[in-house]
Amino acid sequence: MDATERRELLAHAVWGVVRRAGLEGATVREVAREAGVSMGSLRHYFGTQSELLLFAMRLVMERVEQRVQALELPDDPRQATTVVLSELLPLDSERRAENEVWLAFTARALVDADLRTLRDEAYDLLRAGCERWIHLLLPPDTAAREIDLETERLFALLDGLAVHAAMRPARPEQLLAVLNHHLERIGAAS
Amino acid sequence: MDATERRELLAHAVWGVVRRAGLEGATVREVAREAGVSMGSLRHYFGTQSELLLFAMRLVMERVEQRVQALELPDDPRQATTVVLSELLPLDSERRAENEVWLAFTARALVDADLRTLRDEAYDLLRAGCERWIHLLLPPDTAAREIDLETERLFALLDGLAVHAAMRPARPEQLLAVLNHHLERIGAAS
Repeated sequence: MDATERRELLAHAVWGVVRRAGLEGATVREVAREAGVSMGSLRHYFGTQSELLLFAMRLVMERVEQRVQALELPDDPRQATTVVLSELLPLDSERRAENEVWLAFTARALVDADLRTLRDEAYDLLRAGCERWIHLLLPPDTAAREIDLETERLFALLDGLAVHAAMRPARPEQLLAVLNHHLERIGAAS
Repeated sequence: MDATERRELLAHAVWGVVRRAGLEGATVREVAREAGVSMGSLRHYFGTQSELLLFAMRLVMERVEQRVQALELPDDPRQATTVVLSELLPLDSERRAENEVWLAFTARALVDADLRTLRDEAYDLLRAGCERWIHLLLPPDTAAREIDLETERLFALLDGLAVHAAMRPARPEQLLAVLNHHLERIGAAS
């Protein structure tokens, strides 16, 4: 088995454990059992819970990126935004597991400096994504200050919806309705 | 020392430790040291880290409620909303510590069932608060569906801003600017 295949196998195992037992249940021991390998052979990939979290978080980022890359986007910018941002909301059990990893990861990063580089990378990617869509949704002559406020607002809304969905499982229609409601109002003055 | 005075002393100690060492540093041992009491005498209040978290979270809820009660609100509903909701945003070091407790508490509640009752209580209180302000900001004949979507949107925005402020300390003016930007646009159709 080469390095790529082994990483695939482990990714699959980590994901199986996270979905079944939540992130808290995703110990190195459990992942080894799920993958059918010895704990020793996992050391190269993750020896500590922090490294396992880093691995899981990278996995989430790759999964989201692959899904977004594979999307066929509608021409209408607002519809396209909805389609892309839906990939970030916990609308099914796969995305709920991703959401749980993201929340646990960000919470742990507050007290574990080893996680902050990747957390900051994820944060920057998401914020840049929001900014790109906001640019497309607003007229080209929109002031930089307005772009900035709308980007922060969309980014905060997405993460807030994700946090709340983890606390109180929301129906997918409800999450999508709030997102659509927001996108319809972007750029609308009072 | 009566029960109320002792609780005050412990609350002060918990708060001192959380502000100095973060929630992760707020162990029963550290709180006992800060309060100048034995660990044994804390057992009545919290014997485990979960109970300490519950204690800290109740403290946050009391602190926020007391501050909100003490506010002199302007007559204008939008200004009043800004004044009240500002008490929930991490705009100074006290509120940053409260925010850190809230985030750690909600993250831990995902995997610790003992915390969920209080988490749900805090969630319901915040959501009900958002709904009350949304009612005041929208015309009286607004449809229930619109009230609901605007409530979810405001609630998610507030928690998203709080999460992001914990990840990347934001200037208070920036947080307030996003909140104001949002409140100015509530009810504005596209």
